[in-house]
Amino acid sequence: MGYFITFEGVEGCGKTTQTKLLSKFLTTRGIGTVLTREPGGCPIADKIRAILLDAENRAMSPLAELMLYAAARAQHVTEVIHPALEAGKVVLCDRFCDATVAYQSFGRGIDRDIIDKLNIQACQGVSPDLTILVDCDPTLGLARARRRIEATSGPREERFELEELAFHHRVRDGYRQLAADQPDRFLVIDGSDNINNIFAIISKQVSIRIPEALRAVC
Amino acid sequence: MGYFITFEGVEGCGKTTQTKLLSKFLTTRGIGTVLTREPGGCPIADKIRAILLDAENRAMSPLAELMLYAAARAQHVTEVIHPALEAGKVVLCDRFCDATVAYQSFGRGIDRDIIDKLNIQACQGVSPDLTILVDCDPTLGLARARRRIEATSGPREERFELEELAFHHRVRDGYRQLAADQPDRFLVIDGSDNINNIFAIISKQVSIRIPEALRAVC
Repeated sequence: MGYFITFEGVEGCGKTTQTKLLSKFLTTRGIGTVLTREPGGCPIADKIRAILLDAENRAMSPLAELMLYAAARAQHVTEVIHPALEAGKVVLCDRFCDATVAYQSFGRGIDRDIIDKLNIQACQGVSPDLTILVDCDPTLGLARARRRIEATSGPREERFELEELAFHHRVRDGYRQLAADQPDRFLVIDGSDNINNIFAIISKQVSIRIPEALRAVC
Repeated sequence: MGYFITFEGVEGCGKTTQTKLLSKFLTTRGIGTVLTREPGGCPIADKIRAILLDAENRAMSPLAELMLYAAARAQHVTEVIHPALEAGKVVLCDRFCDATVAYQSFGRGIDRDIIDKLNIQACQGVSPDLTILVDCDPTLGLARARRRIEATSGPREERFELEELAFHHRVRDGYRQLAADQPDRFLVIDGSDNINNIFAIISKQVSIRIPEALRAVC
């Protein structure tokens, strides 16, 4: 089996930039790496992602949203993550099951038990070996995210950016609580630091943690 | 509360025609009626329906498919079915939770326990008062469904029609078993009979079963 690293954090925390840097870092060192993201990561899950992120769909019920995330995750695990881990790759995933707990339970207030059960079903036995939480004040993160949206995809794909600030604070608190509950799995990094400093910590920690056997894959 | 009637059966059994006839029959008699369908029935669920039925998405895992149905149902119940029943309407729904058991459990072989739990969550306490199963040999039904597809929507929206015949036989057997298990809720009708004869039975049975209080709504 390979090694599964997930990246988590509020909108605009900088995790997507870090996943790309880490993917390049590992690949350059000859380590077989798969870079993917949630929701999405394969054609069917990308279609589900489009529904989830479309600002047109503000009428979406919290339960329907939760189930759409689970559906996208089930497809992504089956089609991408599980086969890549089976092939001995390092899988880097931008958001995974912790995001569902942070956004849907802490953010929306859905019963944690329902979420945990759906996550267990959707993950089909796959769980992260390391989760990097890029911790960031939502005010800073949302300002970055809005600049990015204006510069790239335009006014769409912003359903979560439209949520009130208090929602994003609950999400951040949720992430921090998850990290406190599982300190061995989580690496918490200060997302207000600059990109290079953050990456220096991540690359060092990942280099230490990736099993020796996978480094030999190169 | 209103009265909730669901229609079930294999592809091409004739249930959609019967839901429309019954809707017209009830509306003509001044009974407040909402005609809807699954998957779909509201804009967000219709977008999920498009993913579910698109023949392009043959790589969809059985678990992802199940969760997409649950997501569409959760949205549909919240946005359409529950409010209509609260308003004292008769709701006619072309497929509902029994379809998930027949197709995903009997058809695809997914654990019935997982399906039942997802159905309970998605239905949020709403359950059919009457389920009309238009029972039909899949060979006959598929021939009808293919003629309809050729005449209307073209080669798309046919993911289920592409399944092998044995799959549809398992679905039919599943429906019959569900009906045998809950004879008070199910009305089973021979779908090989002609449209008018089938509708005569349905309209008579529905007229008997709809609560007196709802007839007074007119």
